[in-house]
Amino acid sequence: MGAVKTKRMPRAVREQQMLDAAVETFGRRGYMAASMDEIAELAGVSKPLVYLYLNSKEDLFTACIRREAKSLVEAVRAGVRTDLPADRQLWAGLRAFFAHTAQHPYAWSVLHLQARTHGEPFAAEVAAMREEIVAFVTQLIVVAAREALPHPRLRSCGGTPTAPDLAEREVAGLAEALVGAAESLAAWANATAGVTSRQAAATLMNFAWSGLGDLMNGRPWSPPPD
Amino acid sequence: MGAVKTKRMPRAVREQQMLDAAVETFGRRGYMAASMDEIAELAGVSKPLVYLYLNSKEDLFTACIRREAKSLVEAVRAGVRTDLPADRQLWAGLRAFFAHTAQHPYAWSVLHLQARTHGEPFAAEVAAMREEIVAFVTQLIVVAAREALPHPRLRSCGGTPTAPDLAEREVAGLAEALVGAAESLAAWANATAGVTSRQAAATLMNFAWSGLGDLMNGRPWSPPPD
Repeated sequence: MGAVKTKRMPRAVREQQMLDAAVETFGRRGYMAASMDEIAELAGVSKPLVYLYLNSKEDLFTACIRREAKSLVEAVRAGVRTDLPADRQLWAGLRAFFAHTAQHPYAWSVLHLQARTHGEPFAAEVAAMREEIVAFVTQLIVVAAREALPHPRLRSCGGTPTAPDLAEREVAGLAEALVGAAESLAAWANATAGVTSRQAAATLMNFAWSGLGDLMNGRPWSPPPD
Repeated sequence: MGAVKTKRMPRAVREQQMLDAAVETFGRRGYMAASMDEIAELAGVSKPLVYLYLNSKEDLFTACIRREAKSLVEAVRAGVRTDLPADRQLWAGLRAFFAHTAQHPYAWSVLHLQARTHGEPFAAEVAAMREEIVAFVTQLIVVAAREALPHPRLRSCGGTPTAPDLAEREVAGLAEALVGAAESLAAWANATAGVTSRQAAATLMNFAWSGLGDLMNGRPWSPPPD
């Protein structure tokens, strides 16, 4: 409308640049220490424009959490090919997870550390992502269990073989254990010089697979009597 | 000195009562929502006395974290008998850990959730405890590895058998994975009706032991070529 035509960048593009700058600043400095001045400067925009687009530091942080949570979940989903055997699926999922957290260390710091240490609303955003990943892993374990030697007495009559005798609750617990182990290892791998994402994935695979594998093939570890 | 002799409780005892009330209130309501009024009432003391003894809500919360972190670490250490074989040691440690987190759900909520979601100083307190537990688990894995079939080429000449070829970094990663899995499972077990601490410990043992056991006996899971 105005007399001077300015070359404008679409709002969506600008917003993504602001989020890029914000994720890096929050991840590097921590939520408290990060300043809107710094974020605006890194994004190459004015501070009022950041406030105009993202409203407040809190809203900007929430937008970072949502974008990075979505990105991580999509990366893991994209890494898993459901036509592979269960161990290969798990390996692919772990490789995708650790590759993503290694390539985006600031994003992982925001999700794993920053979002959980600055109050319930932010923590709730991450909890929602975590539930999605736990559900995904649960499904993967259910499929793996189905793929394992089916328990004869549980085989459905004439239909597809059903899962061995792995209680739903046990599967839920295993998924929680696997996700907790992955979170912990990703933070450690990013903080430890020289640990590649492939090594981190292999460590967890070593830790988890034989255990899960044995379990699904009806060879649980037997606790001694009390 | 005064004319009226009042029956006074020793300060140390009063303080523990205040901490008991604070842990329950913080764990139940969350750090933000918990009020000093509520804590004083639950402890059966006046609010000024809480401030006199513990100084501020922040200091009271820090005192809760320190006491509960110490208590949890001591419970796990006390549960492990170092004269047992490695799998029994791990089982004993997991049993102690899950029993403690189940018996003290508010304390676990303070350590695992509250302390990590309200800023760096509190998160740092928990990180210190976590490092201690990771170091303890690392030592346990090192001992387990030593106990496992020693790698012939690594056996020291004429001396005690040395650990198989399990790199220090791999052990550190395994300890991180195990601790992350345990944290995640404890939160899940406390939030899921009907899951006993023994079941949670057995789930993690099943998940972890065969994996660790295979690994220590030189049978790692082999990743496929990329």
